[in-house]
Amino acid sequence: MNTIHNFEELRERLRQGEPCRVAAVEATDEHSGEAVEKAVKEGWAVVTNFATGDPQESANEAVAMVLRGEADVIMKGIINTDVLLRAVLNKEHGLLPKGNVLTHLSAIYLPMLGRIVLMGDPAVIPNPTLEQREAIIRYAIKLAGAYGIEEPRIALIHCTEKISEKFPITLDYQKLIEMCQRGEFGKAIVDGPSDLKCAICKESADIKGIKSPLEGRSDVLIMPDIQAGNVFYKTLTAFTDAQLAVGLMGAACPISLTSRSDSADTKLNSLAMACLQASMERKK
Amino acid sequence: MNTIHNFEELRERLRQGEPCRVAAVEATDEHSGEAVEKAVKEGWAVVTNFATGDPQESANEAVAMVLRGEADVIMKGIINTDVLLRAVLNKEHGLLPKGNVLTHLSAIYLPMLGRIVLMGDPAVIPNPTLEQREAIIRYAIKLAGAYGIEEPRIALIHCTEKISEKFPITLDYQKLIEMCQRGEFGKAIVDGPSDLKCAICKESADIKGIKSPLEGRSDVLIMPDIQAGNVFYKTLTAFTDAQLAVGLMGAACPISLTSRSDSADTKLNSLAMACLQASMERKK
Repeated sequence: MNTIHNFEELRERLRQGEPCRVAAVEATDEHSGEAVEKAVKEGWAVVTNFATGDPQESANEAVAMVLRGEADVIMKGIINTDVLLRAVLNKEHGLLPKGNVLTHLSAIYLPMLGRIVLMGDPAVIPNPTLEQREAIIRYAIKLAGAYGIEEPRIALIHCTEKISEKFPITLDYQKLIEMCQRGEFGKAIVDGPSDLKCAICKESADIKGIKSPLEGRSDVLIMPDIQAGNVFYKTLTAFTDAQLAVGLMGAACPISLTSRSDSADTKLNSLAMACLQASMERKK
Repeated sequence: MNTIHNFEELRERLRQGEPCRVAAVEATDEHSGEAVEKAVKEGWAVVTNFATGDPQESANEAVAMVLRGEADVIMKGIINTDVLLRAVLNKEHGLLPKGNVLTHLSAIYLPMLGRIVLMGDPAVIPNPTLEQREAIIRYAIKLAGAYGIEEPRIALIHCTEKISEKFPITLDYQKLIEMCQRGEFGKAIVDGPSDLKCAICKESADIKGIKSPLEGRSDVLIMPDIQAGNVFYKTLTAFTDAQLAVGLMGAACPISLTSRSDSADTKLNSLAMACLQASMERKK
């Protein structure tokens, strides 16, 4: 499969397949509306928008539609994330397979790099445990595969390059690197700790004298915690031309989970990413 | 005093005063060298560069020069931060007044905003306690004053807007806001928790329906921890045209504390910021 370098290529790919059935929740704001309109017009999505005015009711109905097998993905509109999650996490009528970790991944097109980089988790897990971080990495490898990245370089981000007890996260990083070396992640390269700049900029890594198989061109950035992830996400959207797609991983179906303040483009890209994931599931 | 909006204005201000006496430590790399050359040429710095080849020895000598009253500021060159800090923190021959908190603040010129925003701490304190965060805010207010910002708007950054026990940092934030309301910080506005984008973008704050005295135009961004601060810093330098000045606060003299991979401009701006701080001290 060819690598998808940007979101135009992603939507072009989707146009070549069957339209994806989308259950939207309160997609009544301007940006969500624009995204839905464009996806439908381009022919890669059929959208049912649940906008009852009662966000919890709308979320419940969207989840029920997926459970009936009538929708492939869920799209979050102008509702609080915790309201949507309450429906998704419902033990009887929810969408979380037992034992699955729920996390949030972003795909970021960085014009300076000319390609898409994945990042998690900026929104759901405050301080990932070793097991949760392992799950985040596995989801990221799968998502990288959907974008056609066959052997993703995965950077474990930190403010230091040293593994030390002063920062317990780095001890988990060491374990994850060893797991990768034992082949437990399949075809992937996991390394770190690395600061964000050295992970994606070879010159910075060279100046610091860092030798890493990431070689300053990582495909996936695993953030130390939700604060760092959130700041990264918000900084990119506030100050750069980066284009983003974001989604919830680990549920029974892909979920486009944008922030209420995200742009129409981010909402469109996120919907497209969810539809890409759904199409990969169908191909299995 | 007029507000300093960018680093050209900062250097122009310095040219109007007496040159600052700088003790540089291993400023032998290309970027440090360029910064020193320009500062000297522009006439606002006189630089003694300690480059013994033994970084610890060089750091000790620079500190000794300050202690003798022969230098006003210290500039970090191509040495590890912990080596420089060992000299600064030395109990007998160091530069840390008893009881002072040592922290790291950045001044960031954001072209999109057309002004300078301060941020801390991306490099020194991993997880600030309430007392340390209070100290960071006090240093930030003082530094904002040096830039001519008389009533700084200080945003306490977080991934959420809610104060909750789920995130203990937000409970500290609440206490800091109350301290500000009691007037303990003098002329300043402290509010949060705020996500980074809402802190500096009124449109984002409006979309989320956030009412805050920060009004989406904060002057100071207080980061939840070192990871978030470091990611913010590295993201700006990797992906934006932001210009930066960084320094260590809390020592007996201003210290320009850049990252080894920083650009010549960042090293120049950081030196200028340290000299600005020194000139404010002289005026007292």
